[in-house]
Amino acid sequence: MPLKTPKEYEQSLRALNLEVYLFGERVKSPVDHPIIRPSLNSVMKTYELARETEYKDLMTVESSLTGKTVNRFTHLHQSTEELIQKVKMLRLLGQKTGACFQRCVGMDAFNAVYSTTYETDQVHGTEYHKRFVDFLKYVQEEDLTVDGAMTDPKGDRGCGPSQQEDPDVFLRIVETREDGIVVRGAKAHQTGIVNSHEVLVMPTMAMKEEDKDYAVSFAVPTDSPGIKIIYGRQSCDTRKLEDGLMDRGNFKYGGHEALVVFDDVFVPKDRIFLCGEFAHSGTLVERFAGYHRQSYGGCKVGVGDVLIGATALIADYNGAAKASHVKDKIIEMVHLNETLYSCGIACSSQGSPTKAGNYQIDMLLANVCKQNVTRMPYEIARLAEDLAGGNFVTMPSEQDLKSPEIGHYVKKYYKGAKGSTEDRWKVNRLIENMTLGTAAVGYRTESMHGAGSPQAQRIMISRQSNLEGKKDLAKDLLDID
Amino acid sequence: MPLKTPKEYEQSLRALNLEVYLFGERVKSPVDHPIIRPSLNSVMKTYELARETEYKDLMTVESSLTGKTVNRFTHLHQSTEELIQKVKMLRLLGQKTGACFQRCVGMDAFNAVYSTTYETDQVHGTEYHKRFVDFLKYVQEEDLTVDGAMTDPKGDRGCGPSQQEDPDVFLRIVETREDGIVVRGAKAHQTGIVNSHEVLVMPTMAMKEEDKDYAVSFAVPTDSPGIKIIYGRQSCDTRKLEDGLMDRGNFKYGGHEALVVFDDVFVPKDRIFLCGEFAHSGTLVERFAGYHRQSYGGCKVGVGDVLIGATALIADYNGAAKASHVKDKIIEMVHLNETLYSCGIACSSQGSPTKAGNYQIDMLLANVCKQNVTRMPYEIARLAEDLAGGNFVTMPSEQDLKSPEIGHYVKKYYKGAKGSTEDRWKVNRLIENMTLGTAAVGYRTESMHGAGSPQAQRIMISRQSNLEGKKDLAKDLLDID
Amino acid sequence: MPLKTPKEYEQSLRALNLEVYLFGERVKSPVDHPIIRPSLNSVMKTYELARETEYKDLMTVESSLTGKTVNRFTHLHQSTEELIQKVKMLRLLGQKTGACFQRCVGMDAFNAVYSTTYETDQVHGTEYHKRFVDFLKYVQEEDLTVDGAMTDPKGDRGCGPSQQEDPDVFLRIVETREDGIVVRGAKAHQTGIVNSHEVLVMPTMAMKEEDKDYAVSFAVPTDSPGIKIIYGRQSCDTRKLEDGLMDRGNFKYGGHEALVVFDDVFVPKDRIFLCGEFAHSGTLVERFAGYHRQSYGGCKVGVGDVLIGATALIADYNGAAKASHVKDKIIEMVHLNETLYSCGIACSSQGSPTKAGNYQIDMLLANVCKQNVTRMPYEIARLAEDLAGGNFVTMPSEQDLKSPEIGHYVKKYYKGAKGSTEDRWKVNRLIENMTLGTAAVGYRTESMHGAGSPQAQRIMISRQSNLEGKKDLAKDLLDID
Amino acid sequence: MPLKTPKEYEQSLRALNLEVYLFGERVKSPVDHPIIRPSLNSVMKTYELARETEYKDLMTVESSLTGKTVNRFTHLHQSTEELIQKVKMLRLLGQKTGACFQRCVGMDAFNAVYSTTYETDQVHGTEYHKRFVDFLKYVQEEDLTVDGAMTDPKGDRGCGPSQQEDPDVFLRIVETREDGIVVRGAKAHQTGIVNSHEVLVMPTMAMKEEDKDYAVSFAVPTDSPGIKIIYGRQSCDTRKLEDGLMDRGNFKYGGHEALVVFDDVFVPKDRIFLCGEFAHSGTLVERFAGYHRQSYGGCKVGVGDVLIGATALIADYNGAAKASHVKDKIIEMVHLNETLYSCGIACSSQGSPTKAGNYQIDMLLANVCKQNVTRMPYEIARLAEDLAGGNFVTMPSEQDLKSPEIGHYVKKYYKGAKGSTEDRWKVNRLIENMTLGTAAVGYRTESMHGAGSPQAQRIMISRQSNLEGKKDLAKDLLDID
Repeated sequence: MPLKTPKEYEQSLRALNLEVYLFGERVKSPVDHPIIRPSLNSVMKTYELARETEYKDLMTVESSLTGKTVNRFTHLHQSTEELIQKVKMLRLLGQKTGACFQRCVGMDAFNAVYSTTYETDQVHGTEYHKRFVDFLKYVQEEDLTVDGAMTDPKGDRGCGPSQQEDPDVFLRIVETREDGIVVRGAKAHQTGIVNSHEVLVMPTMAMKEEDKDYAVSFAVPTDSPGIKIIYGRQSCDTRKLEDGLMDRGNFKYGGHEALVVFDDVFVPKDRIFLCGEFAHSGTLVERFAGYHRQSYGGCKVGVGDVLIGATALIADYNGAAKASHVKDKIIEMVHLNETLYSCGIACSSQGSPTKAGNYQIDMLLANVCKQNVTRMPYEIARLAEDLAGGNFVTMPSEQDLKSPEIGHYVKKYYKGAKGSTEDRWKVNRLIENMTLGTAAVGYRTESMHGAGSPQAQRIMISRQSNLEGKKDLAKDLLDID
Repeated sequence: MPLKTPKEYEQSLRALNLEVYLFGERVKSPVDHPIIRPSLNSVMKTYELARETEYKDLMTVESSLTGKTVNRFTHLHQSTEELIQKVKMLRLLGQKTGACFQRCVGMDAFNAVYSTTYETDQVHGTEYHKRFVDFLKYVQEEDLTVDGAMTDPKGDRGCGPSQQEDPDVFLRIVETREDGIVVRGAKAHQTGIVNSHEVLVMPTMAMKEEDKDYAVSFAVPTDSPGIKIIYGRQSCDTRKLEDGLMDRGNFKYGGHEALVVFDDVFVPKDRIFLCGEFAHSGTLVERFAGYHRQSYGGCKVGVGDVLIGATALIADYNGAAKASHVKDKIIEMVHLNETLYSCGIACSSQGSPTKAGNYQIDMLLANVCKQNVTRMPYEIARLAEDLAGGNFVTMPSEQDLKSPEIGHYVKKYYKGAKGSTEDRWKVNRLIENMTLGTAAVGYRTESMHGAGSPQAQRIMISRQSNLEGKKDLAKDLLDID
Repeated sequence: MPLKTPKEYEQSLRALNLEVYLFGERVKSPVDHPIIRPSLNSVMKTYELARETEYKDLMTVESSLTGKTVNRFTHLHQSTEELIQKVKMLRLLGQKTGACFQRCVGMDAFNAVYSTTYETDQVHGTEYHKRFVDFLKYVQEEDLTVDGAMTDPKGDRGCGPSQQEDPDVFLRIVETREDGIVVRGAKAHQTGIVNSHEVLVMPTMAMKEEDKDYAVSFAVPTDSPGIKIIYGRQSCDTRKLEDGLMDRGNFKYGGHEALVVFDDVFVPKDRIFLCGEFAHSGTLVERFAGYHRQSYGGCKVGVGDVLIGATALIADYNGAAKASHVKDKIIEMVHLNETLYSCGIACSSQGSPTKAGNYQIDMLLANVCKQNVTRMPYEIARLAEDLAGGNFVTMPSEQDLKSPEIGHYVKKYYKGAKGSTEDRWKVNRLIENMTLGTAAVGYRTESMHGAGSPQAQRIMISRQSNLEGKKDLAKDLLDID
Repeated sequence: MPLKTPKEYEQSLRALNLEVYLFGERVKSPVDHPIIRPSLNSVMKTYELARETEYKDLMTVESSLTGKTVNRFTHLHQSTEELIQKVKMLRLLGQKTGACFQRCVGMDAFNAVYSTTYETDQVHGTEYHKRFVDFLKYVQEEDLTVDGAMTDPKGDRGCGPSQQEDPDVFLRIVETREDGIVVRGAKAHQTGIVNSHEVLVMPTMAMKEEDKDYAVSFAVPTDSPGIKIIYGRQSCDTRKLEDGLMDRGNFKYGGHEALVVFDDVFVPKDRIFLCGEFAHSGTLVERFAGYHRQSYGGCKVGVGDVLIGATALIADYNGAAKASHVKDKIIEMVHLNETLYSCGIACSSQGSPTKAGNYQIDMLLANVCKQNVTRMPYEIARLAEDLAGGNFVTMPSEQDLKSPEIGHYVKKYYKGAKGSTEDRWKVNRLIENMTLGTAAVGYRTESMHGAGSPQAQRIMISRQSNLEGKKDLAKDLLDID
């Protein structure tokens, strides 16, 4: 059966020979590194829940390619109902991890590349689609985690790829061989790359003819020669190196981002899915972004559920839960969170089939969804900070709490209305984690920039808004021709 | 066929002997009154579009009761797909009328009474459901417009029905006869009552035992003896009495609200759907409110489309359409409007069957939908006022424009970059109409209070939010038991 | 003494031979016209309060030109303390009228023209300043109301004055004579012109050399030959023509705007304050706008006080005043209103002397003030609509309330928890008036566009923001040179 | 002269025998501890700038007690002008440190205790005022930094001091001796205590008779026997222990908070300023809070200036500064920041003398100021995160940048449009620091909870809002008596 156990997944990662750097040094065993491990736990959760009866319907699905039961994270969506299931699966995982579980970038890339290669082949007579289907069958069969890689470093944001001083700041083809191509460049902010078996590379934006060499898509194993992964720092990352768990906030789960350098990496022919057909670059980007903007209407909502829960809990512990303003603010948090969910559901419900047969979200609504995600989690976080009171950022360290000399003071004076000092401590630290710490990177900044920064959505909303049609509505009412 | 033509509908209204008062006097022929007529035109649109091929799928549907093709406004929703179709139908009508077309209160009442009577019968052994089904078949067969009437005057909002100084400020049973009951009281803010054949009355809130006489639901013809309709004023209502069309804004369509007095109205037995079973009062209210809160995710979005279109048009006429801040504000208007739509779609998509078999929206998401409707149209309107510039509230009258003495000045100085002075005039007046005039009552204030004021939604959101479940998510992550 | 009584003011207006048009016809006696009269009452209040002991300090001041006690509305501000007094005076008048009292445009124009003419003379050796001082002495001595006129119709907003198809859509010099100039064009949205003795014209924006003929400032009596005033419509304006006062909302006070056409109006030499010195055009506009943006931090706050009061009152009448969400929303209204006031006070407190000696507000803070005014009154109005409940837009007419046939129903069913039906009626209508009716034009749209639309303030904020200085702060902290 | 040099200040701190705990261990020399030191640098800046000619007027002032030139941080404000100077001084220090410089809590406490003791003496015939004046003269003469300590741990927020399970969760008198009192309890979130010579304790809220023992105010040296300082953790605090400066963000300045335990601390008689006169407790709290809410209209604005500058700088480095949406968002940041400043200025400008003679801010406007501070910095931070792009949370470590093995990749791919990779790095890290790191605690959470959480301001706004007066305005307009 194609569903790996969590253990098998972990072992398959150990088998990789990744070149990962952290704090200037190569990491021997990423799987065991305390800073990296929580992010692995999050991905592992996608394997774990897939094997639980309770979540089977959400987590697994019959493959459209093989008919076998596969993890939904490797699936091509076959209906609007399945698009909705995807959103629900992501909300579930957000709830269970309180973090970024990383595996959706691959899923979103699969669905985008699948339909784009189909259309590219139709225009250019290429055979990208077949290659990609073969690749995806392999992914499903092996139940792999794949990093979908899009964002280039971009250098000067005022210039296109071929206008940059350093031509490598966008990833590009530097050599074309009989048996494949050699690429150079980097992908920034790569979520989950260290926990992935393969990386599926896509161009970062619509390309013009002069940027042909940059219009490239392919997949290679993450330990391919020439791939160097430089691990990104997060706020409070080193708390995971400290003794004790309590100051970590979310001590089980996390996410990560990394710079992935492609230093002349060879890509064999059968793993190339776009190679110079620049006109299809924009389509691929828009589709991936569309799916990924939908995703945020699920995962961030799940994480939001955790933050709302933590806030309600700290209000209990503080003895403040009955104050009308506290109740009202929690309602507002729920309201905002469910608004995001509504957007995730709506763009799924209004999806439609691509020419290749898999389903695509409604583009306008998916962009509206993400645009709200760039705002509402910030307000949810602000309200959490309001209701938590100041302790979550001024409490001393776990070592102080446990100190024989002063621990009794700490215990005495951080005791609330309900629950032990320890429980209140942990909830406060979780709120700190999600609003300021490692998880804030995922809950706030990733909500802002993941799947494209706010302005990218506004451009798409503008394009999709059918303003002329709306003007006609007004004209019709007014008998203006 | 049960689908009336617009003409037939108009004639059926003429046949009624309504007791309508306006400016202190009884209206002879409401159908022909210039202040009332535009609201009739809006309802008529629901008949007109139902007969157009283009809109057939949206506007008509096979009746679950008779198998005949009926107007969707008289239908019991049979699936989430049909709930979504409802939202789309409402958006369409909002786009076509730029106003409140009134017929949805009946539809929403049908669906709420249908399932509530079913459950009441199960508990009390009553036969309300059968009676209601018979009534609804008649409505479908005759293609009637029905006013769903819920809101009582309420007197002192700090007191329940039976605690009020004047017992009639909530509608109540004052006499029980062999063949029926006699009711007294009033329903306020009744949308579309003058254009309705029947009125379907529901209680205004959850009732306790002492309020038993107030727990009453029934349907009677709108011209039943004792029913007096006192027409509500709207901002700028008398512009419809002026010569000329241009200052009216939306000179074709409108909406209306009225106070409907029940001065000892007799209700025959077969038209009674709740009569003292107070415990079911709350259910009925919540369900009607739920459906109606969903509705706003359709109709107000359609009206919003018109306002966005008018704003984009006036930007063209003003020569300002290319300014980046203008484009950005229009994007924001679209974004907000589509957020509302997403909420309307989502609560439909996540609907579920009632025990009686028709479909109900997701209660949490429907309340979230309406809560957003109490905010975002206001911001959309504010942005429209921003982009319109000041003319829409400072232009002189149409008589000035047409004056032989000064008309040439007006024409000269109100000419914009594109379009005639007249076209620019009309668009400005439409924006005035929607932000300050008759349509603002529908677009702004009805968005605020229709289907329940904002606080009512917050209470429902609180009840549906499963806070304990969310707390458990946080506890699970933190190993707190 | 230069302080006119209200009666004297009214009589001085009667003595004018204004050419005012309303609904296509010339108005015989503007002072007595029921649509115009409330706006006159508002201006009259500036005369009335100036003679009351309680308000003397706020309303009157020693003239810097003559040493006599004058109405502050005719004064050149001599200190930051006086700038603050101005803001307080405007708040007071907003509180007393609940409307736009119109006289501040003149005051703001005086202060802008005073310092600009001084600087123009210094550069060009002209004698505008002396001419203006003479004019202002006359204004002070006679206690005149003066309309400050800036906004041109502008035609195509994408083009400058000299690029327009119709050269008259910006007001311009069409003839230069020995003894003066002849001007043609129009000023739009003129607040209070019908209640003014004189009109003080200023250019509408910064001008370039090719727009020299448009760089003109002057003052003429409002009944000068060639001046035609075309009265602007407001939402609900004709309610003032109805019998009964109750549906008017604010039945005592109001404001007005008008299109003022200058059809070849002669301006004598001694009344010309700018005539082709295009480079000073921008300065004049910025200064007037600056003062006027400060003004809104006073007058709109006063009007806001009335709306908050009316909302608190209707909550009492509805029996809802003790609900925690009601109290919280009123706090929010107060908070927003006082934020605006803070901005009005701050830009005054941080003012500084001009070269000519009068005091100017802090430009950055004045623009920040007005920018907030384009937002917060809308939210205050939205909250008022929330707390009022639906009645304020669905109540029938005063004729219905007084009808022998149905009046008792109306009286019965619109009775609230406290106060008579009539009092509740009036408060509801006042809220309608301020959020949708005639006063909404002043409270909402004028807050948006008066003294320049939002984007105009953003441009000024950008210019005044000293971004380079702020970058240096960051660089200093980071040791970046 | 009473103005210490920075060096003298540092030495005076070294002379203290503070009992400070950090990570469970007693800190030998707080002055030299790398986590604490940046906060000391911030306080030191208040000494440094006081001696610079450029800032003399802002930083120093003639003492009302001694006539000598003292640091304004030790001064009793003598006029509204001086209240404004205070706000400007705080903005300046925010700009120079980008952090919390801690010394204002003492200043705000001085001004509150000064007037409250005066009034307490008048009622109770006590001699607190004289004692306090003596203490303050000493503070001024020695140019001391004093921690103003108000917030108790509070235990169960639903209970008052004397109702708590543990009576010590509010600080209280446990023994009264001839020569003084002994106190027990703790003060939480103490800003700057480690950098202070003295701590000036105040009660945390209004007290009732049964809480008499909690109504206590006094000052003692920070190294008094029984005082234990447990240092609070901040997000990213341990980055200050790492090699290299670049990942620290603001590597020069910072702030700190700590739990200060009073384990039976003796207070000599002449240092007691309130001792059981419970009715004056509320006054003292309100006044301190009022001054401190004003303070935030200065210090947070200065910090905001740094964040705006950093954001503008990163836009330059990214090559994005010319995009219209980037410019618009920076304008919005400035607008919000200056709105806060306006509130700080306004409540100062409208201040008034206390009975004791020093000046107090306008209470309503000071609370409005702080209420805005609980919102706008969050939006400013959100916009900074938007414009920064994702790098500020995903960049690798400084060690990676400097690594011989992979440093060249990092350098290559993090190069922007302008400036070196290093400069771009530092600006990104500064933005991280201010939005998520150590400075975010000061800029975000302290803006939320410092000087009282948002609800505390709402209660004060409600009390100060004169709602009855506003109702009267509406009644007057409507002739309602």
